[in-house]
Amino acid sequence: MIDIDRYPVEPWQLREIGVDRDMLGQSESLFALSNGHIGIRGNLDEGDPVELPGTYLNSFYESRPLPYAEAGYGYPESGQTIVNVTNGKLIRLLVDDEPFDLRYGEIVHHERTLDLRAGLLHRSVEWISPSGRTIRVRSSRMVSLTQRAIVAIHYEVEAVEATRVVIQSELVANEELPGLAGDPRVAALLNKPLEFEEHRGVNLRALLSHRTRASKLRVAAAMDHLIDAPDGFATELVVDRDWARVTVGTALEPGQKITLTKYVAYGWSGERSLPALRDQVEAALTAVVHTGWDELVREQRGVLDEFWLGADVEVDGDPAIQQAVRFALFHVYQAAARAEGRAIAAKGLTGPGYDGHAFWDTESFVLPVLTATAPKAAADALRWRLSTIDLALERARTLRLEGAAFAWRTIRGEECSGYWPAGTAAMHINADIAAAAIRQVRWTGDTKFEREIALPLLIQTARLWLSLGYHGHDGRFHIDGVTGPDEYSADVDDNTYTNLMAKANLMCAAEVALRHARDADALGVTDTERGQWEAAAEVMAVSYDHRRGIPAQDRNFNQHDEFPFQVAFDNDQYPLLLHVPYFGLYRRQVVKQADLVLALHWCGNHFSAEEKARAFSYYETLTVRDSSLSACTQAIVAAEVGQLGLAHDYLREAALMDLHNLENNTRDGLHIASLAGAWLALVAGFGGMRDHGGQLSFSPQLPDGMTRLAFFVRWQDVRLRVEVRPEQVEYSITDGPDGHVTLQHYGESFTVHVGAVVTLPVKRVAPLTGPPRQPVGREPQRIGDHSPGKAVPGSLS
Amino acid sequence: MIDIDRYPVEPWQLREIGVDRDMLGQSESLFALSNGHIGIRGNLDEGDPVELPGTYLNSFYESRPLPYAEAGYGYPESGQTIVNVTNGKLIRLLVDDEPFDLRYGEIVHHERTLDLRAGLLHRSVEWISPSGRTIRVRSSRMVSLTQRAIVAIHYEVEAVEATRVVIQSELVANEELPGLAGDPRVAALLNKPLEFEEHRGVNLRALLSHRTRASKLRVAAAMDHLIDAPDGFATELVVDRDWARVTVGTALEPGQKITLTKYVAYGWSGERSLPALRDQVEAALTAVVHTGWDELVREQRGVLDEFWLGADVEVDGDPAIQQAVRFALFHVYQAAARAEGRAIAAKGLTGPGYDGHAFWDTESFVLPVLTATAPKAAADALRWRLSTIDLALERARTLRLEGAAFAWRTIRGEECSGYWPAGTAAMHINADIAAAAIRQVRWTGDTKFEREIALPLLIQTARLWLSLGYHGHDGRFHIDGVTGPDEYSADVDDNTYTNLMAKANLMCAAEVALRHARDADALGVTDTERGQWEAAAEVMAVSYDHRRGIPAQDRNFNQHDEFPFQVAFDNDQYPLLLHVPYFGLYRRQVVKQADLVLALHWCGNHFSAEEKARAFSYYETLTVRDSSLSACTQAIVAAEVGQLGLAHDYLREAALMDLHNLENNTRDGLHIASLAGAWLALVAGFGGMRDHGGQLSFSPQLPDGMTRLAFFVRWQDVRLRVEVRPEQVEYSITDGPDGHVTLQHYGESFTVHVGAVVTLPVKRVAPLTGPPRQPVGREPQRIGDHSPGKAVPGSLS
Repeated sequence: MIDIDRYPVEPWQLREIGVDRDMLGQSESLFALSNGHIGIRGNLDEGDPVELPGTYLNSFYESRPLPYAEAGYGYPESGQTIVNVTNGKLIRLLVDDEPFDLRYGEIVHHERTLDLRAGLLHRSVEWISPSGRTIRVRSSRMVSLTQRAIVAIHYEVEAVEATRVVIQSELVANEELPGLAGDPRVAALLNKPLEFEEHRGVNLRALLSHRTRASKLRVAAAMDHLIDAPDGFATELVVDRDWARVTVGTALEPGQKITLTKYVAYGWSGERSLPALRDQVEAALTAVVHTGWDELVREQRGVLDEFWLGADVEVDGDPAIQQAVRFALFHVYQAAARAEGRAIAAKGLTGPGYDGHAFWDTESFVLPVLTATAPKAAADALRWRLSTIDLALERARTLRLEGAAFAWRTIRGEECSGYWPAGTAAMHINADIAAAAIRQVRWTGDTKFEREIALPLLIQTARLWLSLGYHGHDGRFHIDGVTGPDEYSADVDDNTYTNLMAKANLMCAAEVALRHARDADALGVTDTERGQWEAAAEVMAVSYDHRRGIPAQDRNFNQHDEFPFQVAFDNDQYPLLLHVPYFGLYRRQVVKQADLVLALHWCGNHFSAEEKARAFSYYETLTVRDSSLSACTQAIVAAEVGQLGLAHDYLREAALMDLHNLENNTRDGLHIASLAGAWLALVAGFGGMRDHGGQLSFSPQLPDGMTRLAFFVRWQDVRLRVEVRPEQVEYSITDGPDGHVTLQHYGESFTVHVGAVVTLPVKRVAPLTGPPRQPVGREPQRIGDHSPGKAVPGSLS
Repeated sequence: MIDIDRYPVEPWQLREIGVDRDMLGQSESLFALSNGHIGIRGNLDEGDPVELPGTYLNSFYESRPLPYAEAGYGYPESGQTIVNVTNGKLIRLLVDDEPFDLRYGEIVHHERTLDLRAGLLHRSVEWISPSGRTIRVRSSRMVSLTQRAIVAIHYEVEAVEATRVVIQSELVANEELPGLAGDPRVAALLNKPLEFEEHRGVNLRALLSHRTRASKLRVAAAMDHLIDAPDGFATELVVDRDWARVTVGTALEPGQKITLTKYVAYGWSGERSLPALRDQVEAALTAVVHTGWDELVREQRGVLDEFWLGADVEVDGDPAIQQAVRFALFHVYQAAARAEGRAIAAKGLTGPGYDGHAFWDTESFVLPVLTATAPKAAADALRWRLSTIDLALERARTLRLEGAAFAWRTIRGEECSGYWPAGTAAMHINADIAAAAIRQVRWTGDTKFEREIALPLLIQTARLWLSLGYHGHDGRFHIDGVTGPDEYSADVDDNTYTNLMAKANLMCAAEVALRHARDADALGVTDTERGQWEAAAEVMAVSYDHRRGIPAQDRNFNQHDEFPFQVAFDNDQYPLLLHVPYFGLYRRQVVKQADLVLALHWCGNHFSAEEKARAFSYYETLTVRDSSLSACTQAIVAAEVGQLGLAHDYLREAALMDLHNLENNTRDGLHIASLAGAWLALVAGFGGMRDHGGQLSFSPQLPDGMTRLAFFVRWQDVRLRVEVRPEQVEYSITDGPDGHVTLQHYGESFTVHVGAVVTLPVKRVAPLTGPPRQPVGREPQRIGDHSPGKAVPGSLS
């Protein structure tokens, strides 16, 4: 639980006042910086104390065996785990021979600020050493968005009294990590994962090169330094196999300062030679030294200004959400900005959680945000998926299927899931990828992307569905034995979300293949095959609960036994997966995360308003939100069916997941998809934004207390601004070459021209059901709502 | 594939002429001896060459970690693996300094004979050493059925020419085993699993005591020797940490013999002290030396005579089956005879397959045979199950269920299954145990057993079902998310076999609890609870395929997609589990092993003859028999529905599984359940024996070519003999104190009196369907049928 006095609610920054050692791990994640290529956790400059040191390079991993008590055909034998690479952010300080360490001496002042517009993490400290010397330290760090290989730190020490000061700036490989449990083979690979290859050092520059044992990936890290200090300082350079150190020593008079600017460059490759990699990082270093700190800061601001111009969300009436959504957008953006053909992992590059794997989170939660706000980053992420297609084609063959079966969890494309019912069987990821690709096409109108990226993704996933499903005796196309988003069910028949997403996948594949006939032909698509896709899509089975008059999560789910929620609540058994075996979950009506409700969002055009209201209400009674991927979708659909207060509560859960450490695991990295979900909950929830069939539409309505919601999205070539107030909505656009766009407002088309504002009235949805109820103990907690009489701050688990 | 010239078909023995090194592993299993407490593989006396050395003590195991790529709540963390203990059967021979080894020199004659009436394995060899000395070796070995701790070997060497002879009789611990793959933690525990504790030696007697590292079980093995030789022989004793050796050296003139009688005694305990165990084995050794070889042989014969009196099956017209069924009965009996409160493993004590675990095979395939032929052994096996009930109660609590959830696979009672969908979820094992208990009660009329063993088993399993299932909105009692016998489906709803077995379990529990009200009361059973059991049983859901007019394997199975058998056949993909992922199997209509057909057998009273015929015919098209537990059940139901030729083919598969090594894994141990299945296929199949509701009934009919089938069963206090000929059946009894029993013949009751023979006519069933078809490539192979034009000898895989 966050302390609001320590982390004040402010619109454009996340500030920590003082330092709380119990929150160290969480703060390391919250203050993580990244550009999608490099990620550094918010560890203290001086390295100690530390919860989890972390420096990551996107897709730099170690392989490890995946063990099974009982193996089965097609089980992946090798997993991938992100590696904590050479730490270049380390700057130690000695004050009159005493190490600057927050655990000793006296902290007069300590503040860290993540500046969401500048893309910098600032720190200012005033510290009295155990022997009584007072110093002030100010540091700023960044992972550059313009110079992809670069981390830069500006480190300043000011003496209050006359003091001898020594600064040690380091590269450290193979840092000690908290206990690696379990399989000794895994521990052997991941404990000190880097094997020494080369070290070099000259003047204030040093380089270390290492290689992983099993995956055989090479990493080089180099640092260089500029020093600004009173005359008479001394420097020293030492390099060893696993560390390099530049030392600067000087004596400061009262009020004098020493400033160290540190540049660190990273490079890695599984292919390139050691000399090639060495040259690459040294070149990057030379370039950044030439750029200089001030210009680097300006560049960083420039990139972020451009991002916020098309992405910002303004919220009046809920300052915690205002802060949270910008924090969320910042982290989503920096997780992806320069990933450039590599994965966006579930934790971004903020921590080692989930082994650094990417899941369907990327396409289903993160890319909807990026397509609308930073479309180039979204396109890059889909390029990464396509880059794994040969592995996906091979995986499909292993599974005796046609087309491509993309990995459920992976870093480089190989399936790394060690439990197939919640991995391999979760085939919806393929439709999620297809949906993200078609969304990107529809939002950007980028036909080159459509032809080169979307087309092969759509074709190979359509082939997968056609081989996976079958035409039943009832004339319907069925998809049996798959796992939908809800991981408390598995291997089910006709999961509605999966089927509707597959239906769209098949239809879009047929459309796009027709539009790009020559390219489709080159991939072997015939008219017959297109016809088969269309035919399957046409008769796709949708599970329905006739007794309740609602779509059903799958063919059998709604007939299952009730789950004893009261027992679970009485025995403190949430999250259920830590207390109840799969065997006790799968056979009952209990939902880990929005599944049918996710279909209500993304495939909402298949259902009537009444069906949606009833279905939402029914599934609310079953959904325990044991996944961080749930609350945002519940917020969106709650808003659609007129349950605005509930939507607001779920928005808070999604948006404050990490700021309030709701799942007690923020230390392992941020929940990037939940952060993206904060934006979705606001824009698709209270903005009512949908893009069914490529038609952008809005049905805005604000919850009580929220007096204004304004957001930008990039649609086609325009920047669209939507400003929602309780009674009216203003639509306006900039940058459009055509000068106008056609949108929908509550289902009615209208046109907006550049420079003009279209103002339309808000229509609030009258709820068709009573207030939905949740399983006992799983009601939303109204986190961060500090208005009197409502406050129930606390953790979910 | 067995060579009929090497293993001639003979009615009362299994004889091997010559020695085939390619079949060494298989012969080691076929010639394994056991008393259910000790098991020794048919390794050559001299140890080398060897495929898999094996000496096992029932339930002597090592613990090992069960690893998971992704762990889940309730997964067992520790497995159990049977340990190859100190080898006491080793007798090496040197002939003029050259070791007697079949790989060198010349084999003039080599023959091994397993005598099914004597319970002895004989061997006779004439061998010319590389330097030209001819010797004859005759050995006989046994695992005593009367002296449970004892292995005895009678070893005789005869010189054809004057020769120096040295015999080395050994105990060897930690024999080298073929490669242990995978997890290094497991290899560390199972490679040299025995830690030295003590050795002792005096005169010709030696003792070694060891202990396992993780499970902390202690084993002591001791040997003693009697020597009969011409004067002037010398002896020597050496004992070391992992071996002990008695050496006898002498010079033999032509025609002279030296005879060594070796007694080995074993003891093990997890509780008893080293001195206690040492005394125990030495006492056993002293006792058997006092008994002497000849008397031991007489005792052995006596026990087996008594067994065969109530168990023998005579088959005219199919000599291979005549031999096979006696071979089968012998192995089933010796796997269980002296197990006395320990498990009957899937491989008995004949090899290390399945880690030495016991499964539902015991209750569902082995115990029906033992209850009818060796009821004391069956009662002991159920006593073993009951001895694990505390673990089963605990397991149920872990699974959030009431009552007892017995282990799917185990040695000592702890769940050792590492893949829950085909382990924990296979809840039917609990009903199988209950069924075995109630069967034992009904066949023996043993009310002490009913009260002490059956009652608690029935009550705790009934509680399990009541907590596992639920009353649905349709008024039926449903059991969802379980796995039936067919392991190519998993986590299904209302598996018909499971539900009908659970129904019987609940009803019998209510009956027996009423009959033993005071004992039931002590276990907390109230009238209300009994009423709940009855109510659930009353409305138990039975899945039905209305389109086809047959009971369905489960609620959804029959709507699933067809399996592409032709593709599997064309690509040589049988058995499917080695070529197709579970994901490709579970979602389709493909059956690994009889499941609904097993329900047709054991719960056949719930279906009409027409339903059975149609259902059998339908499931035949889907059943690939990738399990050795399938053919026997298919034989039984094929016979019932009048498909006698097909029944005969399946009988052959079940009966010849090991003799013909049909699954290519007989080297790992015999398929005890399939051997039991041979008896079931004859007695329940062609004998048409059923015991629905405790009423013993027969509907005999012989297939073409089988001219007579006679069998004994023990029913209540009588020995019943049924002799079936093509046109008539003779029923007779002996030993009955009441003087008569009432049976059914094709549903009509009749009475048999002691000494009288009741002769009744055979009624052959007219098939209600055409000849059933199997998946392409999985037709029965008519193994061992050497009549002209039909012979397709070969392996299943």
